[in-house]
Amino acid sequence: MKVVLCGSFDAAEEANWLYALTAAAPDVQWLSLQAARAAPHEVAAAVVANPAPGSLQGFPALRLIQSLWAGVNGLLADSSLPAGVPICRMVDPAMNAAMAETALWAVLSLHRGFFAYARAQQQGLWQQHAQRRAAQVRVLVLGQGEMGGTTAARIQQQGYPVQGWRRGMALAPLTKTADIVINLLPLTAQTRGILNADFFAQLPPQASIVNLARGAHVVDADLIAALDSGHLQHAVLDVFHTEPLPAGHPFWRHPKVTVLPHAAALTDERSASAVVAKNLRALCDGAPLLHRVDVQRGY
Amino acid sequence: MKVVLCGSFDAAEEANWLYALTAAAPDVQWLSLQAARAAPHEVAAAVVANPAPGSLQGFPALRLIQSLWAGVNGLLADSSLPAGVPICRMVDPAMNAAMAETALWAVLSLHRGFFAYARAQQQGLWQQHAQRRAAQVRVLVLGQGEMGGTTAARIQQQGYPVQGWRRGMALAPLTKTADIVINLLPLTAQTRGILNADFFAQLPPQASIVNLARGAHVVDADLIAALDSGHLQHAVLDVFHTEPLPAGHPFWRHPKVTVLPHAAALTDERSASAVVAKNLRALCDGAPLLHRVDVQRGY
Repeated sequence: MKVVLCGSFDAAEEANWLYALTAAAPDVQWLSLQAARAAPHEVAAAVVANPAPGSLQGFPALRLIQSLWAGVNGLLADSSLPAGVPICRMVDPAMNAAMAETALWAVLSLHRGFFAYARAQQQGLWQQHAQRRAAQVRVLVLGQGEMGGTTAARIQQQGYPVQGWRRGMALAPLTKTADIVINLLPLTAQTRGILNADFFAQLPPQASIVNLARGAHVVDADLIAALDSGHLQHAVLDVFHTEPLPAGHPFWRHPKVTVLPHAAALTDERSASAVVAKNLRALCDGAPLLHRVDVQRGY
Repeated sequence: MKVVLCGSFDAAEEANWLYALTAAAPDVQWLSLQAARAAPHEVAAAVVANPAPGSLQGFPALRLIQSLWAGVNGLLADSSLPAGVPICRMVDPAMNAAMAETALWAVLSLHRGFFAYARAQQQGLWQQHAQRRAAQVRVLVLGQGEMGGTTAARIQQQGYPVQGWRRGMALAPLTKTADIVINLLPLTAQTRGILNADFFAQLPPQASIVNLARGAHVVDADLIAALDSGHLQHAVLDVFHTEPLPAGHPFWRHPKVTVLPHAAALTDERSASAVVAKNLRALCDGAPLLHRVDVQRGY
């Protein structure tokens, strides 16, 4: 089987992926986009990471588009995607674990005041803050897919009361009692801009936001206003409207914002390649594909 | 029963303790040190937190010295302590949990590069680091008492390989493979200065130190030299030779040092008071005292 690998990689990243994919699926003949264009009728599948729009046009035998990324909003925005070809998301246990680690780190940091202590160190200030118990810090996880579910379970295991929200549930009763909100929603028309002034106003005073999903979930100006008014305590942001976060964006230097470089959960090449190999095997065998995207729903 | 409460409290702290202790042990008559001096023959027990040397002299009926602190090295250094009176340490499940939270936060921060990301944010740098799995980060916990044990278990539960060391075990085989060392030892003549140049040299390159026990466990100059040479990656320090950490101490501004204000595990007044009440009840009933200090051993 011939499979095209295409994405916005640099050469080193592309080589790393090729090593990992070859090890996981040694029977596959891996092609660059350029090589695939030379024999387009033979390409049965595409393994993609943020491919340039139009990349997947002109492959008449394509039967699977497998994303190396969990979020497929960028991929689905390409109006030239071949209609009817199944698209599968990456659901990688190693990536879920990494996401849960980042979320747990953010919860511990907020609960125990470690961001405030870091600011105090910069100012040479020695000052203890009151210490709450984990049971007093209420966590709301938006999104109850694989990542949201793993994350909620890990945080609950540490003694925090955790509530989960997903599409179709009433949100208002949950926001009222959320000291920390962790966003792990897919980006869809319904969730774009969900973290806005109205949402923040529903949270109790001194609540904090942890956005690990997509930058477009947040209305940046609303978040900055809610932090500056003193209503919100802190925001941990891993994702942004534009990435890398542009120089001069107010998040960079805001004392109540922790900026991460979209590193909450990097794809684990070894583990993700095993997931890809499984789906390519399913394609060969005519078995059901794993983690197929519902294009209408958007994830 | 009359019990003297004495320590280096400010008025607000002392009032908080009195409320909590009164709630936990309503039958006890709590006395200030001044009030106790007026009727020294009636004082059966002393509940202490860093009392001034000599405070506990002149109470002939004293049958228990109960520390509100887990570490009793300061208390034992008072040569005027009445000989033969049992001394008990504070072993508080809420405090153990808080210590484990801080240790887990430090491990997650070091494993996932969050201290490095915080420095990058200050410089406006967007740069991802390679992501290791928890299983690749080896943690060594020095001290296997209540805090060390709880901490090791919580970290192991997150997927990190954890080894524990306590008095009497060979240390060298463990240091060779420790990426993160967490110190939770009691401070004794044997452990003073244990985190020194020799110890650091035994660790693999890019190891990190988390000291949550006592400042005197560390030879400060050796630690700074090991960080500056690039051998050690980072140090998280909650305790210091002199506290508050003096202005101008190099730890304050060292880019590879995280300074916490002895806040890794604050005593939880409610939970600690319940422990005190239990031991006062045991004293009344002639039952065995809990967590009695071996004065020769030093903890």
